[in-house]
Amino acid sequence: MTTTENLLQTLQTEIEQTSYGESPAELYEPIRYIMALGGKRFRPLLTLLAASLYTDDWKNALKPAIAVEVFHNFTLMHDDIMDKAPLRRGKPTVHEKWNSNTAILSGDVMLIRAYDFLIDIKKEDLRNVLLRFNQTAAEVCEGQQLDMNFETRWDVTEDEYLNMIRLKTSVLLGFALELGGIIGGADSEATKLLYEAGESMGIGFQLKDDLLDVYGDPEKFGKLVGGDIIANKKTFLLIEALTKAEGKTGQELNDWISAETFDKEEKVAAVRGIYDTLGIRALTEQKISDYFAKGIDCLERLSVDPERKKSLLQFVHQLVEREQ
Amino acid sequence: MTTTENLLQTLQTEIEQTSYGESPAELYEPIRYIMALGGKRFRPLLTLLAASLYTDDWKNALKPAIAVEVFHNFTLMHDDIMDKAPLRRGKPTVHEKWNSNTAILSGDVMLIRAYDFLIDIKKEDLRNVLLRFNQTAAEVCEGQQLDMNFETRWDVTEDEYLNMIRLKTSVLLGFALELGGIIGGADSEATKLLYEAGESMGIGFQLKDDLLDVYGDPEKFGKLVGGDIIANKKTFLLIEALTKAEGKTGQELNDWISAETFDKEEKVAAVRGIYDTLGIRALTEQKISDYFAKGIDCLERLSVDPERKKSLLQFVHQLVEREQ
Repeated sequence: MTTTENLLQTLQTEIEQTSYGESPAELYEPIRYIMALGGKRFRPLLTLLAASLYTDDWKNALKPAIAVEVFHNFTLMHDDIMDKAPLRRGKPTVHEKWNSNTAILSGDVMLIRAYDFLIDIKKEDLRNVLLRFNQTAAEVCEGQQLDMNFETRWDVTEDEYLNMIRLKTSVLLGFALELGGIIGGADSEATKLLYEAGESMGIGFQLKDDLLDVYGDPEKFGKLVGGDIIANKKTFLLIEALTKAEGKTGQELNDWISAETFDKEEKVAAVRGIYDTLGIRALTEQKISDYFAKGIDCLERLSVDPERKKSLLQFVHQLVEREQ
Repeated sequence: MTTTENLLQTLQTEIEQTSYGESPAELYEPIRYIMALGGKRFRPLLTLLAASLYTDDWKNALKPAIAVEVFHNFTLMHDDIMDKAPLRRGKPTVHEKWNSNTAILSGDVMLIRAYDFLIDIKKEDLRNVLLRFNQTAAEVCEGQQLDMNFETRWDVTEDEYLNMIRLKTSVLLGFALELGGIIGGADSEATKLLYEAGESMGIGFQLKDDLLDVYGDPEKFGKLVGGDIIANKKTFLLIEALTKAEGKTGQELNDWISAETFDKEEKVAAVRGIYDTLGIRALTEQKISDYFAKGIDCLERLSVDPERKKSLLQFVHQLVEREQ
C-alpha cells in the first residue's frame, strides 16, 4: 500500500521536474517561481488519493494531478493582480516581483499548460474530463467575480457567501477527487460521490480558513491572525455577525468597520469579542463540522474496500483538524 | 458548392447565437461585448474553407472554428490591457469600459470557453487537436511577450521581428487552416501543408498591416494612417529603416524617433519620406509577396480537386489585395 507521504513525495519531485517552457524567459520564469513557492499541494494529492482507491497504477494520475495544481496556481497569479496582493506564501507576488503584464501573460500560459498536462489520460476519458474541467474552471472564475462583487456590498447573505466559496474553492476540490476516480476507473456513480465529497469538504475547508483567521494560534497559523478583520473582509464570520448583531453590539461592529484609523490589535480583539458575544465561533465550527461530515459520508458510501479508503480518510481528518 | 459568402453568413449567425454563460453578468457581458464588436472573422473562415476542401459537411467545423475566434478575441482582450489600448474597432476596450480586473477575468473565461467549443469534434481527433491548439496558444503568448520586450529594445533584427509576428499572428492562422483540414479528414501531410500555408500567409498578412499603416489609403484603411510612425512602433518598416539608414538620413530618423514634441502629420510625412528614400516600401511589398506566394504554393500542392480549392484561393487573393 502506498502511503500519503509517498504520494506527496512523488508529486513534489514531479512538480520540481516539470518544464513549462523556456523562451522568452520573461514568460516562463514567473511560472517556475510561483510553482516553487510551495503550498500544501493538497489538490493534486486528492487526485492521487482518489485514483489509489481504485488502482495501484496511481502514477497514471500524476500528470493530470499536476494539471490541477498548475490551474490552481494560475488562479492565484491572476487573483493576486486583481486583489493587489503584495505577498503570496511570504514572498512577493508575481505582479510585484515583475509587473502586472507579466502576471497576466504568464498566467495565461499556465492555464494553457494545465490543459497540456490534463490530456495525458486514456482516450476514452478525455472528452468527459475536459468537459468537467472546463465547467470547473469557469466556475472558479465565477467565484472570483462574485468575491470581487461582494467587496462593495454589505447585504451579502449566508447563502450567497456559501455559493461564492463553493465556486471559488470547492468545485476544484470536487474535480480533483473526481478526476482521480475517473483515471482510476471508478464508475459514474462513484465519480459523482467523489465530486460531492470534495465540493462539500471544500466549503468546510474555506470556512475553517475564515475561522482560523480569527481564532487561529498565531504560533501555528501561517498568516497574520486577524488579517480579515483588519481588512473588513466579508468572511462567513463577519456576514453572520452582521446578520445577528443588534442594538449596541450592532453599532459597535459598524463603528469598527467604518473606522478609518484604528489600532490593529485593538480592532481584532474588539471584533473577536463581538463574535464571541454572538456565538459566531460555535456556529462556524458547527457549519465546518457539518460540511466535512457530509463529505466524509460521501466517501464512506463509495463501494471500495475499507482498507483502500484509509489513506484518503486519514488525510481528510488532517484537513478537519488543521491549525494552519 | 458552398460560397465563402455562405460560410461567413453561417459563421456570423452562429457567433451571434453562441452563449458563453450568464451569471455573474459582470463576467459574461464583456465577452458578449467583444465578440459583438465584429472584425473580419477570417480565422474561423479559414477553418471552414479548409474543411470545405475535404468535405461537404463543413458544418462539423463550425464550433471548432468559433473556438479559434473566441481564442483570438481572448488574446485581444488581454493584449489591450497590456498595451493600455483605449479603443478596439472604434469602441472602448473592455478594460476601459469596465476595468482591468474584469478584462483579466472575462478573458480567462474566454480561454476556457475556447476549449469548450474546440472539443466538439470526433473522438479520434481530439487529442491531436488539443496538443496542436495548446502549442499554438502558448506560442501566441510567447509572441505577445516578445512584442512587449521589443518595445524597450532598439537592436531588434529582421529575423527577430519576423519570428515575433510568426508567433503572435501567424501560428494561429496556420492552426485555423490545419484544424479545418483535420476535421475535414485530410491526411497528416495535407494538414502540415495547410499549417505551413497559414503560417506563411500570416506573416505576409502582418507585414501588409505594417505597410498599410504607412502607405494605406486614409479613405479605406480602418485605422489612422501613420499611427505606428507616431508611436515609434517597431514595425518591419522601421526595423529595416533603422538598419539601412546611414549618415544624414540616419540622423534624421533618430531625431524623429527621439522627438518628444512634434506635429503628427509632419512626423508621418517625414518618416514616410525616409522610408521612400531607403526603398523600404518596395522591400516590404516584395517580402509580403514572397510570404503569400509561399503560402499559396503550399495550398496548390494539396491533392485536392482544383474546383474545391477555388473558394479558399479566391479568399487568399482578397487577403493579398486588401487595403484595410
